[in-house]
Amino acid sequence: MPSTFEGMAQPRHASPMPYVWPDKKRCALVISIDVDEETPMLWRTRNNKVRNVAELEMRRFGLRVGIPRILELLAHHQVRASFFVPGAVAASNPGLLSTLLSHGHEIGLHGYFHEPVAELSPNENAMVLDRTTRVFKEQTGRVPRGYRSPCWQYTEEMPGLLMAHGIEYDSSMMGYDHPYTFEGLSEIPVSWSTDDAVSMLFIGDGSDMSPPWPARNVMDHWFDEWQATLSSGGLAMITLHPWVCGTAARMAMLDNLLRRILKSDGENSTGVWCTTAQDVATYHRTSVNFERFAVSSDVPNAPRYAFNF
Amino acid sequence: MPSTFEGMAQPRHASPMPYVWPDKKRCALVISIDVDEETPMLWRTRNNKVRNVAELEMRRFGLRVGIPRILELLAHHQVRASFFVPGAVAASNPGLLSTLLSHGHEIGLHGYFHEPVAELSPNENAMVLDRTTRVFKEQTGRVPRGYRSPCWQYTEEMPGLLMAHGIEYDSSMMGYDHPYTFEGLSEIPVSWSTDDAVSMLFIGDGSDMSPPWPARNVMDHWFDEWQATLSSGGLAMITLHPWVCGTAARMAMLDNLLRRILKSDGENSTGVWCTTAQDVATYHRTSVNFERFAVSSDVPNAPRYAFNF
Amino acid sequence: MPSTFEGMAQPRHASPMPYVWPDKKRCALVISIDVDEETPMLWRTRNNKVRNVAELEMRRFGLRVGIPRILELLAHHQVRASFFVPGAVAASNPGLLSTLLSHGHEIGLHGYFHEPVAELSPNENAMVLDRTTRVFKEQTGRVPRGYRSPCWQYTEEMPGLLMAHGIEYDSSMMGYDHPYTFEGLSEIPVSWSTDDAVSMLFIGDGSDMSPPWPARNVMDHWFDEWQATLSSGGLAMITLHPWVCGTAARMAMLDNLLRRILKSDGENSTGVWCTTAQDVATYHRTSVNFERFAVSSDVPNAPRYAFNF
Amino acid sequence: MPSTFEGMAQPRHASPMPYVWPDKKRCALVISIDVDEETPMLWRTRNNKVRNVAELEMRRFGLRVGIPRILELLAHHQVRASFFVPGAVAASNPGLLSTLLSHGHEIGLHGYFHEPVAELSPNENAMVLDRTTRVFKEQTGRVPRGYRSPCWQYTEEMPGLLMAHGIEYDSSMMGYDHPYTFEGLSEIPVSWSTDDAVSMLFIGDGSDMSPPWPARNVMDHWFDEWQATLSSGGLAMITLHPWVCGTAARMAMLDNLLRRILKSDGENSTGVWCTTAQDVATYHRTSVNFERFAVSSDVPNAPRYAFNF
Repeated sequence: MPSTFEGMAQPRHASPMPYVWPDKKRCALVISIDVDEETPMLWRTRNNKVRNVAELEMRRFGLRVGIPRILELLAHHQVRASFFVPGAVAASNPGLLSTLLSHGHEIGLHGYFHEPVAELSPNENAMVLDRTTRVFKEQTGRVPRGYRSPCWQYTEEMPGLLMAHGIEYDSSMMGYDHPYTFEGLSEIPVSWSTDDAVSMLFIGDGSDMSPPWPARNVMDHWFDEWQATLSSGGLAMITLHPWVCGTAARMAMLDNLLRRILKSDGENSTGVWCTTAQDVATYHRTSVNFERFAVSSDVPNAPRYAFNF
Repeated sequence: MPSTFEGMAQPRHASPMPYVWPDKKRCALVISIDVDEETPMLWRTRNNKVRNVAELEMRRFGLRVGIPRILELLAHHQVRASFFVPGAVAASNPGLLSTLLSHGHEIGLHGYFHEPVAELSPNENAMVLDRTTRVFKEQTGRVPRGYRSPCWQYTEEMPGLLMAHGIEYDSSMMGYDHPYTFEGLSEIPVSWSTDDAVSMLFIGDGSDMSPPWPARNVMDHWFDEWQATLSSGGLAMITLHPWVCGTAARMAMLDNLLRRILKSDGENSTGVWCTTAQDVATYHRTSVNFERFAVSSDVPNAPRYAFNF
Repeated sequence: MPSTFEGMAQPRHASPMPYVWPDKKRCALVISIDVDEETPMLWRTRNNKVRNVAELEMRRFGLRVGIPRILELLAHHQVRASFFVPGAVAASNPGLLSTLLSHGHEIGLHGYFHEPVAELSPNENAMVLDRTTRVFKEQTGRVPRGYRSPCWQYTEEMPGLLMAHGIEYDSSMMGYDHPYTFEGLSEIPVSWSTDDAVSMLFIGDGSDMSPPWPARNVMDHWFDEWQATLSSGGLAMITLHPWVCGTAARMAMLDNLLRRILKSDGENSTGVWCTTAQDVATYHRTSVNFERFAVSSDVPNAPRYAFNF
Repeated sequence: MPSTFEGMAQPRHASPMPYVWPDKKRCALVISIDVDEETPMLWRTRNNKVRNVAELEMRRFGLRVGIPRILELLAHHQVRASFFVPGAVAASNPGLLSTLLSHGHEIGLHGYFHEPVAELSPNENAMVLDRTTRVFKEQTGRVPRGYRSPCWQYTEEMPGLLMAHGIEYDSSMMGYDHPYTFEGLSEIPVSWSTDDAVSMLFIGDGSDMSPPWPARNVMDHWFDEWQATLSSGGLAMITLHPWVCGTAARMAMLDNLLRRILKSDGENSTGVWCTTAQDVATYHRTSVNFERFAVSSDVPNAPRYAFNF
C-alpha cells in the first residue's frame, strides 16, 4: 500500500468543529462575479480564428448589459462583491477594473484567457500569472489579493505560484463549506450548486448539458442553500457570470433573492456578514480557524500497481 | 497583446441606456416560427439517403398539424407573427408562403437546407442565399426583408452578404435583449430561454439533451421571462417550431400563455407592442436606437501565441 | 431541385379536419406496454457475452414484478391494453403470450431482439419478421394484428413487409396525433412525451440522458397531455416498460393517473374510448379517416448536390 | 434458439407473492452510505498521477465534513446504517472503520479502488477481494458480512467469489424491490431513484449528466418513493455519498426527510423496520423468502447468430 494514501483525507469523526466568525456574525455571504466573457471561447478555439460570431455576441452581452445591471443591483442592496477578471478581458477593456474598484468592489485574478490550470504545465501556469498580474499592476497600480481558478481546477504547484506572485487567497475549491487553509494559503470555497453557469449557461453548440433552468427554480434552490448556510454557520458563495445572469428575468430573480437573503436573519440581518472574499480571507488569515482548518494537498500516487499485491 | 482584443466588447459601466420604443410602448413581443421541418435532418444525413422514415414523419407533423393550429391560435389572439422558412421547405410546399402572407404574417429566410453558416464557407453561404432568395422571389414576387440564421450561428461575412441580397435585418443573435445594430444591419435578438426546441424538442436518436419538459413548466418559465421584459423595457422573442410546439398539450399551454401575456399590461395592454420582427426592424432603422446601440464584429485573432510573451 | 422534395409534406393551411371517432366518442386512450426486458441489452452486446449481470437483473424486474403489477392495475381499472413483445422474450417465457391474452389484452410484435429497423437491411428486417411471427404462431396459433417498431424507427420497406406478413397496423410513428394511414397501412401513433422510458429509464452505464424524473412530475405531465387530447379529439398513447414503470412509486402514480383520466370526462367518461391499439386500427381501417389522413413516405433524395445549382 | 434464453426471466403472471417481514413489520428501510471519496477518481486516472487537486478536495469534503454530519444525523434519529467502504479509504484512514462500528453502524466491502467488477477479469476481482478483506481483517479483526459492488455492476463469478471470502450478502442489484436470493447469495436490493449521486453528484469536468438537482426536489421524490414502499411492503434502500449529500442544504433536507419517514407509519412507526442491510440479510437467510424469491443468473449467450435462422 503506497504510503501516499495515508494522506487521502484526515477523517474527523467527532462533530466537526464550528468555524468561528468575527463579532456576533453567524455566517458569511459572498457574491462573486466571474467576468469570463469571451475568454473561454477564445481558449477553446485557440488554434483557429473564431468563426461563429453569434457566440461572441452572446458572451459580449455580459459587459454591455450584464455588468451595468449587476452594478446597479449591488448598489441598490448595498452589497460589495468580488469580481474575478481574466487578464485578456481587463486588457481589452481598460476602464473595467477601475470602474469596479470605484464602485467599492474587489477585483481578483481569473487566468489570462481563462486557461484551465490542470491542462497547463506548471511553467505555463507561472507565465499566465506573470502576464495577468502585469496587466492588473499597469491598470490599478497593484497586484490583487485574490485568485479564482478558471473552471475551478487546481494543481499542486498553484499555492506556491500564487504566493510567489503576492496573492493572499484562492477561491476555487470545495474541501470545506467555510474558509480553510490549503498548503498554507487561505481558501475561500466555492459551490457548484450556487453557480449560475451550472444551471443556466446555454451555448447551443451541442456541448450543453441541459436546457437552461427557469430562473425561478434556480433562485428557490439558492435560497434553500442560503437557509442551510445560515443554520450551519458556513460560508455561502454565489457565483455569477454577467453574460449568463444578466438577462432581465434572471436579474429580477436575483433582486428578489437578495431581498429574501438579506432579511432572512431578521430585519437588520445583524448575524450575516455580507462582504467580499478578500475581507473574509483577511479575517481567516489571522483567526483561530487558519490552523484549525489547515490541510495539505497529499496527492496520491496513481494506483497503477493495484494488482501487484 | 494583439490590438484586436481592444474590440472584445465596449463596456458600459453606467446604467445602460434604455431602448426607446415608439409611442407609449413600454416593450415589444414578437412571436417567431422557424418552419424547419425535415431540413435539419436532410442536412445532417446529406451524404446518404434518409433511412429512418419515423423521424421524417415526426417532423412532417409540423406542416400537417402544427402550422394549421398555429395559424388558428394567432388568428384567435389577433397576433401577427414572423415565419422563417428554409428554401427547401418553401420549394416543396408551393402554397405555404402565400398562405402565411394571406394570413397577415411576415415571411423571412432561414437557409436552404437549414445549413449552419459557421460550418459553411463564405462562398457557400452566398450560394445558399442566392438559391433561397430565388425561391422566395419566384413564389412571392419579392425578396423578404428578414433573415434568421439556421442554428442561430453567424459569421463575419453575413452582414455584407445579407445586405447585398436586399435583406434589411437579421434575427439570430443575443448581444442585447432589445434591437441593436450589428455591422450596420439591424439585429432583432433571439433568446434560447424562449425557444421551444431547447426544452421540448425530442428526436430519440441518442442526440437529445434531456427528456422534453412538460409544457406547463415551459410556459410558466416563459411567462416569467415575459414579465421581466415588461419591467425592463426590452424585446421578448418567442421562437416556435411547428413540429415541436404543435402538439395538443403545447398548443393549449401556448394559448393560455398568450392570454396571460396579452393581459399582463392591464386590460388593454396598451404598453405592449405585439408585432412582427419586420415592424420592429423598420422602427429600429430610423430610430435614435440605431446609432446608440451599434456594435461591430471585432473578431479577435486566435490567442495561439499566448505563451510567447 | 429534385422532385422528391415535392413530397416533403402536404401542408394543410386550413384548420385541420377533425378525426372522426365512432359513436359519441370524443377521443381515444390506448395503454401500450413494450415488454422489452433484456432484449435491447442483448442486441447492444450482440458480439459479446453479457458481462454485467446487474443490468440483466434490472431488466428482469419487469417480468418478475412489473408485469404482474401492471396486469393487476389494468384489471382494477377494467382497461384492456396492448402488449408488444419481442420474439426472444416470448420464446424464453412460453406462458407469457397466453397469459396476456387470457387477461383480455392484445399482443403485438416488437422485433426479435429489439433490433432497430433503420440499422438493419430490408432483408434482415424480413428475416426478423419471419422469425418473430413464427414464434407467435407456434405459441398462440396466429400472427398478431399489430406491430410496434423497436426504438420507434421505421423504414420505407416496412409497410410492405408488414402487410406481407399479415400485419394490419403499425404503431411507431408521430405524423399525426390521431390514427392515420401510411403507405396504405394503418398507423396508430405514439408519443415520446407519454413514454415512461424517455423520462424514467435509468441504466447507470453512462448512457443515461438525465436522472430519472420523480414519478409525480411525470404523471402530472401525462395528465396535462391527456387533458389536451380530450379537448382536441385526438389519440393519447401511453407507453410503459414493465422494468421501468413497475416500481412501487411509479405504479402508485399510474394508479392515480388512471383514476384521474378515467374520470376526466365526467363521472362515466362516456366520451372517452379507452381500448386497445387493435380496436382503434380496426375502426380506422373502415372509417372515413382512412383515406382522409393518408400519406405516402416520399423519402427525399439526399441533398448532397445542394451546391451544384 | 439457444436454450439459455429459457432462463431470461421466470414470469410470474399471478399477483406477485408478498415478501414476508418479521413480527408485525410492514416494510423495511435501510440507509446505506457508500464512502467512495476519491477512489473512483483514482481508478479513472489510474495510469497517471492526479493533476486536478480541486476534484480531490471536492471528494475529501466527505470524510472531513460529510461523515461527521451523517453520524450526528443518524444518532439524532437513532438510526443504524450500513457503510460500504473501499479498501483504499479504510487503509488511508485507519480510524474510520472502528469509529463507524463504535457508533453502532454496519461496515461492508466496496472494492479496493472502487473498481467496476464488469470491467475486471474474474481473477482481478478475486485479487481485489483478497486485498480488501485483508484490510478489514487487520483493522477490525474480521471480514464484514456484506458487500456492495462499485458502480452497482455484477458478474457471474461474483456470488461464488463473495461466498468463498466469507461474505453473506450482496447489495448491488435491482431484480426485486425486496430482498431476494441470487445464485444462493442473499441480495439486498438498491435503487437508482434513491441514490444521491444520480441526481446531485456534480464534478464539473464535462462528464456530468445534468445540473445537481435542488435538495428539496430530491427529498420530495424520495418521500414519494418511501410512501410507495410502505404501501407495497417492500424494502426502501437510500444510498448516500458523504461528499455528495454532506453539504448543509442536503443534510437539512435529509433531516427533514427522516423525520417525515419515521413518522409516516403513525406516531411510533411500529410497522417500519428501520435497520441495517446486515440485519435484513440475516432475517432473509432463514426466512421463507429465501427459497421463494430465488433466481439464478442465466446469462444468455450473445445473439450473434440471430440471422442464421
